[in-house]
This record gives sequence, C-alpha cells and structure tokens, in this order.
Amino acid sequence: MSWEDNVRKMDPYIPGEQPDFPDMVKLNTNENPYPPAPGVRKLLAELDADRLKLYPKPDAKELVEALAKAYGVDVKNVFMGVGSDDVLGTAFLTFFTGDKPVLFPDISYSFYPVWAKLYRIPFETPALDENFCIVKEDYMRENGGIVISNPNAPTSIAVSMDFIEDIAKANPDSVVIVDEAYVDYGGESCIPLTKKYDNVLVVQTFSKSRSMAGMRIGFAIGNEKLISYMFDVRNSYNSYTMNYPSIMCGAEALKDKAYFEETTRKIIATREKYKKILCEIGFDCPDSCSNFLFAEHKTMAAKVIFEKLREKHVFVRYFKTPRIDNRLRITIGTEDEMEKLVSALKEILA
Amino acid sequence: MSWEDNVRKMDPYIPGEQPDFPDMVKLNTNENPYPPAPGVRKLLAELDADRLKLYPKPDAKELVEALAKAYGVDVKNVFMGVGSDDVLGTAFLTFFTGDKPVLFPDISYSFYPVWAKLYRIPFETPALDENFCIVKEDYMRENGGIVISNPNAPTSIAVSMDFIEDIAKANPDSVVIVDEAYVDYGGESCIPLTKKYDNVLVVQTFSKSRSMAGMRIGFAIGNEKLISYMFDVRNSYNSYTMNYPSIMCGAEALKDKAYFEETTRKIIATREKYKKILCEIGFDCPDSCSNFLFAEHKTMAAKVIFEKLREKHVFVRYFKTPRIDNRLRITIGTEDEMEKLVSALKEILA
Repeated sequence: MSWEDNVRKMDPYIPGEQPDFPDMVKLNTNENPYPPAPGVRKLLAELDADRLKLYPKPDAKELVEALAKAYGVDVKNVFMGVGSDDVLGTAFLTFFTGDKPVLFPDISYSFYPVWAKLYRIPFETPALDENFCIVKEDYMRENGGIVISNPNAPTSIAVSMDFIEDIAKANPDSVVIVDEAYVDYGGESCIPLTKKYDNVLVVQTFSKSRSMAGMRIGFAIGNEKLISYMFDVRNSYNSYTMNYPSIMCGAEALKDKAYFEETTRKIIATREKYKKILCEIGFDCPDSCSNFLFAEHKTMAAKVIFEKLREKHVFVRYFKTPRIDNRLRITIGTEDEMEKLVSALKEILA
Repeated sequence: MSWEDNVRKMDPYIPGEQPDFPDMVKLNTNENPYPPAPGVRKLLAELDADRLKLYPKPDAKELVEALAKAYGVDVKNVFMGVGSDDVLGTAFLTFFTGDKPVLFPDISYSFYPVWAKLYRIPFETPALDENFCIVKEDYMRENGGIVISNPNAPTSIAVSMDFIEDIAKANPDSVVIVDEAYVDYGGESCIPLTKKYDNVLVVQTFSKSRSMAGMRIGFAIGNEKLISYMFDVRNSYNSYTMNYPSIMCGAEALKDKAYFEETTRKIIATREKYKKILCEIGFDCPDSCSNFLFAEHKTMAAKVIFEKLREKHVFVRYFKTPRIDNRLRITIGTEDEMEKLVSALKEILA
C-alpha cells in the first residue's frame, strides 16, 4: 500500500506543440492570425491594476451580459469558463453520470475521450463514414449523452442545424452537446435550438474567431435549467474561474462586431484561395467550414510532409491516429503565412 | 426517465458576497487592502495585446520558473492553477480515489466537503478541540488522505511545522495537503517538508499576501511525482488553465520581495493593533496568524452585529455553522478601514 495506489492516473490530452521561434509559421493550433479587436488593446492598457486586489465578480457579470446581448439570449442562458475546454469538461462532469455510454464520433476532438476517462464515464465512438461524415442514425440508440463537434475537428466538415435537431429530438432524455468552436467560419450555429429543446447545450470559444486564445474564454448557451446545473457544479469546484482581465477584455471584444466580421471574412477568403492552391500541388481536402484544412497528399505521406515542414519551422498538426494518419490539419494563417507554407511545400514535394 | 436523472446535482460552496458600493468597507473575503506590486501595474499596462491571439504556454513557464526561484525548489516541484481553489480541487480529484475517508477538521475551509461531495470522495471531519485547535491524534488513524488548513480558516490559528511533520510521518500511505493560503501572516510554511516527505503537498495562493485575488493564481509545491500526477489530471481537463496576463503578472509580482514584505508587515501590525481595540470593546479573538480575526462578542450575538454592520455597508463574514455561529471573521483592512469598522461597532454596541 502506498499513496500512489489512490492516485487517479491519467494519459492526458496532448495539445499541439507551442514552439517559439522568431521565424516560425505557426499553423498547428487553429489560432487566429489577426490580433484581438482594437478595443481590447486599449482596454487592456487602461485596466485598473489596483482592482486586482479584489476577487473578480463570481458571475463574471460584464462578460455574461455581453454574451447574452450578442447572442440574443438571457443571462440565465449563459455559462462561461476558462476556454471551451473548461466549459466542455464541466458539462461532461455535470451531465454524464449515468451507466449508458456517451456517444461521440470516432474522429473528433480528441479531448472527448480524455474527459470521459477522467470522470469515469462510459463512452462509445460511432465511426464517421468513408467521407468523414457523421452518420445520424448512429446517434438514435440508447445512450447517456451525445457530443457533436460542428464543424467537426479535425475534419473541418459541418452538418446543418436540421441534422442536429433530428438528433436532439430523438434523444429527449440525453443532453446533446454541440461543440461549435469553429462555427463562425461557415457553420450554422445551433443556438436557436436551445430555445426549443431543453437538452441542447451549445459551446463556443473566444480562442478562434475572437483572436483571444491567450485569454482563455469559452462559453455555453442553453436552457436555464441546464446552465443552472452547470453553475452548481462549477461553484462546487471554483467560485471564481474568470479573472478580472478576461471578464473585461472578453466583454469588450464582443462590442466590435465589424472587426469580428472582417477578420472572419478574411480567413474564409484565404482558406478558399489556398485550398485551390493546395489542390494544384496535389493535396485533397474536404470543403471546410472551419479555420483549417484537412489535407491529404496524393503521393507523399503526411508524416513525412509534417516533419519536413517542421524542419523549416513551418508547424502544422499531424495526428498518429488510425484513418487520419495520412492527413494534415493546416490552420489558415495570413496570406503571407500561407505563401510561406506553399513555398515550403513546393520545396518538399519537388 | 429524463436527462435530469443523470445530472450531478450539487449544493455549491457559497463564497463571501461581493458587494459593490462606493462607500463600502469590505472586510469579508480576506482580500489584501493594498494593491499589487508596482511592477504588476506597469507590466499590465504594457502587455502585448496581440499576443492574446496565441494560446498561452501550457506549462505557464514564466510563472512556474519564478515560483521555483522564489521558493527554492525545482520547476518540477511546482504546480499552478486558477487560484488555490483550482489547485486544491485538482489535488482532491488526483489523490483521493480510495474507499477510506479523507480527514479534515470539522471547522475549516468550507470548500473541502464540497470538493469531496463533487468527486464522491468519502470523508470524515474530526472536531477541533474547545479552543478551536486541531487534535493531532485524530489524524493518526486509517484514512484516504488528509487536508489541513494552516493557519486554519476561519479560526486564524496556526500549528507548527513539527505538528504537520508528525502527521505526515504517521501517514506515509496518504497524501497530506497543507493549505497555506494565509501562511505569510505569521504561520510557518511546510515547504521544507516537501523535500523530506513524498506525500506532503503545500498549497498557496496569490489572492491574499500577493494582492492578486482578481488574477486567480494559486500554486502547489511538492515532490516531483506528486506534481507530475497533478499535471496529468490537469492536462486531462484543460491544457491551458493560466491565461497570458496571469502568467506574466504572476511572475512579475514575485520579483518585488520588498513590497510583499512591507505590505505583509503592515497588515500584521494593523491586525495586532485592532485586536487590542476590539478586545477593549468586548470582543474575544484567538491569536491570529492570518489576515483576519475570529471574533466573538461578550454580550451581543454575532449575527446581530453582522447584520447591523451590513446596514452600514461594513461587510464582515458570518457563518451559520454550529460551534462558530457566534463568531465573526473580520479581514484586516487598512488602518482607515479598521477605524471605520471600530466606529460602526461602537455605534452598534452603544
């Protein structure tokens, strides 16, 4: 007997590496290549440092009110956390206590099985079809909960709101989590479903389309009862998860709709342009509704390309996972970054 | 059957209220009355907002290196989180998976039983003695883990490092968590024990003596193996818990040892001065090693005093808990705030 016998031993989720070279082209963790809205810079510089001596507001008032306003819901429909990982983790802990398996696709955000193992939640992973599409019928059987990333990662493929509605309607006794981390790049948000179904929870993040991965802000929108259960669990873990800068800067970021729309539009335009260029040099990608491409090359193995890019300080994401181990997940950067990627690829493929 | 049947239903921890009146005297959540070190203000104003588009370093490098340096340990001995609540919650989840009860005093930080319930950890709460002191022998029996707040809250009473060492030595098969949120105000830190015992985890916070409750930074120091298990669990929940401002400002705060020592000394001096004054108007408090007093009045009920102070916008903490429901926990503020408290008390007691 030792204290180690009582340890919860985990194989953690491995995030994309965070290299730090001055000359790097960083297209590996789906960050936004554009800075946060100008108002955020101004607010951060003027933030009252003396206020830090006090606890932040436990309800993150300014942020939650701004989110409710931006998404046309009541403050009682909004939950917030330290990135969408914190929000999703809290949702797993709150809603998935049953004996039946929680369902999510075999190829999806690789954190889902990690949360399930952490909280000892049974789960099953129905396979995507041969085109990496979710098979709706797989989610029409007995389960303890459902998690769908939409658009899905790392496939970049989206389903419609109707598709999710069919799943939600067929599963009134399960919470259906819709992880919309990438929805602003061409997906259709299921927030409207949260007004119609009390079992639908939509999760989004400031890390992608709001250019604030470094601030760690995520949120969920759902029925008041769902949200209230999540707060009870959160407040049984940590009363103050959002620090003062994140509350204030997050609220500020939501004010500048024009900047958000402009940067999002730019990323979508860059994506479409470079999807074509990548196809011209032998890559194949499904249509993307996200800020990344899910690319396979006709002749060269993904692992080789990944490693050769890495040597040139061009970072993309490679998963050593069955079915997708010949694919690269390439974040959409600025046009300049994408040009550097294409030059490097041309050299590698030459 | 409904999705609600699978919800983890919790009675959350209730933190002290966070009122927001311009004229208030806020002595209810043990915050520091002095602002963070001047370097923090400067750094915050100059923080690169563009950097927010990228994820923070998952290992919070700058902060962890600064902590290792400040406390004379290796970076491998340091864990960090979103306030010490995040750190303690992670420790409960990581180390307490056995069937035997985890032990902590009946009167202590009221979050301990909440974490235990959240993670379905069995626990027992040996009673403090009639002077609110921890009875060492109560922690010498079979258990699944031990948690001691030292100095204890809300009693303000500290035990020596030898006292904790006896407990650690008697329990080699249990992790012993020493919650040192208030240690800088007169307690003796057990960090030296972490070099001698692989089962001792010391937890501290930036929310009290570092004047940074609003930034949400806590940390733990322990044996490399303990810390590594905690990171495996953290990284199975959220890869990036510390946002960029908290990493940078936290590291900066640690640099100014003189400011830290000066503000801590001032608070201790204010505490001793006003302990005497409170005694003169009929209060009784144990000797405090913290930034608060645990006060009982000879003639007037604590609840009445609490409510009357509240009407005057003077906020202290009152717990409706058996054994301590005639006590007030009064945070040490500035001399000016303490004068306002004493004036208000004199009016109430007149």
